[in-house]
Amino acid sequence: MNLQIAACQLEVTPGHPDQNFEKIRSIIEEAKAEGDDILIFPEMAIPGYIIGDEWENNSFIYDCFNYNNLIAELTDDIMVVWGNVDIDEDRVGEDGRLRKFNTAFVAQNGKIVSRFYKTLHPDYREFDDDRHFYSARKLAQDNKIPISDYLQPLKITIKGVQRKIGITLCEDMWSDDYSFHPIERLLADGAEFIINISCSPWTWRKNNKRHRVVRQRLKSHPVPFIYVNNTGIQNNGKNVFLFDGGTTIYNGDGSLRIVAGDYQEEILRTNLYSNEKEVIKNPVLSDERDNEELLNGLIYGIKKFFDLIHTGRAVIGISGGVDSSLSAYLLCRALGPENVYTVNMPSEFNSDITKGLAQQLAETLKLNYTIVPIQDVFEYTVEQLENTTFERLDESGEMNKLNLKPVDRENIQSRDRGSRILAGIASALDAVFVNNGNKSEVATGYTTLYGDVNGAIAPIADLYKTQVYDLCRYINSVEQEKIFPDELFVIPASAELSSEQDIEEGEGDPFAYTYHDKLLRAFIEWRLDPEDILTYYIDGSLPETLGFDAEFLQEYFDNDDSFVEDLERIWRLYKINYFKRIQAPPIIAVSKRAFGFDLRESQIGVYYTRNYKEMRKKLLGEN
Amino acid sequence: MNLQIAACQLEVTPGHPDQNFEKIRSIIEEAKAEGDDILIFPEMAIPGYIIGDEWENNSFIYDCFNYNNLIAELTDDIMVVWGNVDIDEDRVGEDGRLRKFNTAFVAQNGKIVSRFYKTLHPDYREFDDDRHFYSARKLAQDNKIPISDYLQPLKITIKGVQRKIGITLCEDMWSDDYSFHPIERLLADGAEFIINISCSPWTWRKNNKRHRVVRQRLKSHPVPFIYVNNTGIQNNGKNVFLFDGGTTIYNGDGSLRIVAGDYQEEILRTNLYSNEKEVIKNPVLSDERDNEELLNGLIYGIKKFFDLIHTGRAVIGISGGVDSSLSAYLLCRALGPENVYTVNMPSEFNSDITKGLAQQLAETLKLNYTIVPIQDVFEYTVEQLENTTFERLDESGEMNKLNLKPVDRENIQSRDRGSRILAGIASALDAVFVNNGNKSEVATGYTTLYGDVNGAIAPIADLYKTQVYDLCRYINSVEQEKIFPDELFVIPASAELSSEQDIEEGEGDPFAYTYHDKLLRAFIEWRLDPEDILTYYIDGSLPETLGFDAEFLQEYFDNDDSFVEDLERIWRLYKINYFKRIQAPPIIAVSKRAFGFDLRESQIGVYYTRNYKEMRKKLLGEN
Repeated sequence: MNLQIAACQLEVTPGHPDQNFEKIRSIIEEAKAEGDDILIFPEMAIPGYIIGDEWENNSFIYDCFNYNNLIAELTDDIMVVWGNVDIDEDRVGEDGRLRKFNTAFVAQNGKIVSRFYKTLHPDYREFDDDRHFYSARKLAQDNKIPISDYLQPLKITIKGVQRKIGITLCEDMWSDDYSFHPIERLLADGAEFIINISCSPWTWRKNNKRHRVVRQRLKSHPVPFIYVNNTGIQNNGKNVFLFDGGTTIYNGDGSLRIVAGDYQEEILRTNLYSNEKEVIKNPVLSDERDNEELLNGLIYGIKKFFDLIHTGRAVIGISGGVDSSLSAYLLCRALGPENVYTVNMPSEFNSDITKGLAQQLAETLKLNYTIVPIQDVFEYTVEQLENTTFERLDESGEMNKLNLKPVDRENIQSRDRGSRILAGIASALDAVFVNNGNKSEVATGYTTLYGDVNGAIAPIADLYKTQVYDLCRYINSVEQEKIFPDELFVIPASAELSSEQDIEEGEGDPFAYTYHDKLLRAFIEWRLDPEDILTYYIDGSLPETLGFDAEFLQEYFDNDDSFVEDLERIWRLYKINYFKRIQAPPIIAVSKRAFGFDLRESQIGVYYTRNYKEMRKKLLGEN
Repeated sequence: MNLQIAACQLEVTPGHPDQNFEKIRSIIEEAKAEGDDILIFPEMAIPGYIIGDEWENNSFIYDCFNYNNLIAELTDDIMVVWGNVDIDEDRVGEDGRLRKFNTAFVAQNGKIVSRFYKTLHPDYREFDDDRHFYSARKLAQDNKIPISDYLQPLKITIKGVQRKIGITLCEDMWSDDYSFHPIERLLADGAEFIINISCSPWTWRKNNKRHRVVRQRLKSHPVPFIYVNNTGIQNNGKNVFLFDGGTTIYNGDGSLRIVAGDYQEEILRTNLYSNEKEVIKNPVLSDERDNEELLNGLIYGIKKFFDLIHTGRAVIGISGGVDSSLSAYLLCRALGPENVYTVNMPSEFNSDITKGLAQQLAETLKLNYTIVPIQDVFEYTVEQLENTTFERLDESGEMNKLNLKPVDRENIQSRDRGSRILAGIASALDAVFVNNGNKSEVATGYTTLYGDVNGAIAPIADLYKTQVYDLCRYINSVEQEKIFPDELFVIPASAELSSEQDIEEGEGDPFAYTYHDKLLRAFIEWRLDPEDILTYYIDGSLPETLGFDAEFLQEYFDNDDSFVEDLERIWRLYKINYFKRIQAPPIIAVSKRAFGFDLRESQIGVYYTRNYKEMRKKLLGEN
């Protein structure tokens, strides 16, 4: 007996249940017309999922919850599965508020016939499920019954046939690190196929990892697996997450049967028990199209973020360097060239090379372009500050004159660009301006607060400097014409804020990015400590472990002292400069760990473990 | 038989186990010399507690963990209880990382004799326990045993007497909203007295609430209760939390036996079974000294924050208004007048009244003072921007000239002050500058990003405007001389950024703070929605529920339309302007809900529930 499944990769707008419901309503009507037997929507398809503490607004919760009956009413002649919040008005959550559940609802013949609470609650990275929801596990513990009592296959009659369907939510399938495995449990209890509704953001290589996890789950019970995820973006303020969808219907052996297109609102249909071999759409596995996924994700994220803030225009400072060039390209693709306003803001320290590269980029991409020099106000500010005298208003009448250090002068230029010019232009154009920082800069604080830290969104701040170059090369390889000229890859990366940073003299940033990016990745994404790095350095495994050329160490460092000095310099920069990240704009998250609320930091200063100090002492022969 | 208890209100430095251990070591030696039988330190006394995802740095975790044996070695002739992290190397946490427990360790005679895992894990406000730690509850579920098996009184022989002691951590005593009550369980199992080690920040009226909770817990089994909390500050980046300590030894009836001084590192000693009546220190209950606690907390928080960032000097813009006046006073108390650099930055729109008030404040407090006018650069910037023309670099060659709106001109002034002058001066003085915003401004976004949003710390951003006035009045009432002149309380609150905001014409902020502060508190701290507010408005209970004078509604609003219009204006400002809070500095948290990672927001725009829309329609008679 055939069973026609429709898996709806819905674009969910978080915090706007009315909009989500309207789409769900019309898709249910469409599915009925198509003769679908089961229609499936993603996790939290009505409220959205990453909405912060809006989960504490009871009126909003009830508003979302009440859509459940409206959806159920539409289910004559079809079974529908959707994610939404369920509530228990008689009990509170552990925060003393209304008790809520992250729930998969099932309706048929106009009624809600079942509901499944999420069993496994992720509380890592951007996920805070236990903050907001009560889990099936807690219920089981409260009621002194086994968890499995809450996790039985749904028994339901469809077209006269009794079915047993395993219904799960998101993390329930990612159970490797948990002591309970919902999918295996459902399969052992005879589920004929598994539905997993998710709200799972894209990150680098996550899709292929999911394919492996599904194969693992189905190992002992090979049944079809239907993974339904949403598109759109959702944010926690400090991070914007990209939802590519990736909705997939798997065959029993875990092979791909149908895969939805990235970032497309789309309905996948299949006859689950048909003997015909389905044509696999999008058969290319994820790892083979990393750069394509990354590029499409960034463009999509920018576009959706500008939709969210109801702005279609972007202002961007372009220096002629690689970061602002990539950012301008992404804006151009997301918003159209006519909506991108580029500003070159030279002071005396900017070279003709970079000024030329900036204009050339604007010409290549056909963007709006202007030059606003900052030299006059820079000089005025230096003079005004150097003539500022504080008087102590007590008997001493002490006078205190200001004295600008070189770094103070550098920062004045950056702040003049970010806060006086770009913010002023964006405000006059009813636009927002964009932050061009990369992850290497954000990590080391090689950036000026209220200067180049500014912006409404940071599109490339989750890409290390070397990844920025790689993505530019990839873009050149796929675009008809060369977007980024060869020179851009040759000139030294430089802030150009003083005569010490003269690129025509070959001077640039105080980093060897091919090594320091890997070191930073170890700190940020692998959560390693200087103790780990020094251990690897001493046992000789550092290049292999971090993934850089072994010759580098000899070429770059004179001796162990200079290695250790550099290690501590980077660790210190990373830890101390968190104060800048606190005030930095939202970052589009694409890595395994993005600065923001994904990686949650505290201002705790710099610390070295006792082991580190002992190893260091031994290595450097100190007392 | 006497039992001498020493409860150590330790100042814990988060992220610096070495410093914490050194203090613990010397206090243990001191306690042995004093003949103490039991010495108790707070929760997470070695690592600190609010350290963000530093909990994922395994080298750091092991470093902290390894101090446990060093502490145990010191416990000949004394029993010591302390909080630290425990690990299970054989199992992972649900995040796939090293499994960690928030633990109370007990050592005696040189050995760790027992360890108690925290049973109840808070996951609300700033707390993320389930993100970082495995709980006793999860262990019980994994092992299919009752939770109580992990929570038995410690049986230990002290001076030849067998004791049964209930040892708990922080949230274990705040069990009202949980389905399991650790303290009651321990008491039912015969605990002679309860120890609770905490890392619990101060908030408005929390101390007295704790006294009530302890009385509740001891209701059926009246035994002594020893609450040990730390001092210091801990932060999550966006919020600085104040730890006043509040270490308290309670009698069996829940009355106070000894209470430690606020914000003091101190050891409370008592003979638990002595018949002598102890003299109660600090007998005044918390609610009677709210303002004193608040003022002391803010001063302490500023001082400790400046210690944390290794800076002793503060720069502050003073406009002559109440917010900057209060901030300058707090800085003066925290850092000393010689370390406070005040800057008045007039443009043409600043009145002589406020300029005079600014100077008068600096004189009263004997601060460093200077005037840096911004008029020249303001005019230059307006001209420069108005002469800026964008050329579209395509065949159209379209030209686009900028046109400044009044609000653009206002924001130019604010950014000039915050980013050009204050940041420049702070940098030249190797100081930081301070944000003067109050919670009403932060909530409504009545502030300029990269302007008055700037600063390294926001000391009063968790106080509504009306609370700012109240605190100033309180300070005047306790200081020898009048700090804040009467005029400050009379002039309208105003940004003074345009001729529309002329205080000499009586023009000020577009808020009626006595009402709007209460409305904002309902949104932010009570988590209410416009639906709730409109419900109360319609049923006539709004003034009583929110706590403002009933006459206000008739006086301020012409009719229902203008009430609704204002409600939606405030809701909209609050939701939309979150983008400014994303980039705002750390806020010292003093309320029941502070902006930052305490209240976690998403950029989701503005939403009204269906109920709200229906009520609105009915009320306003619209179709």
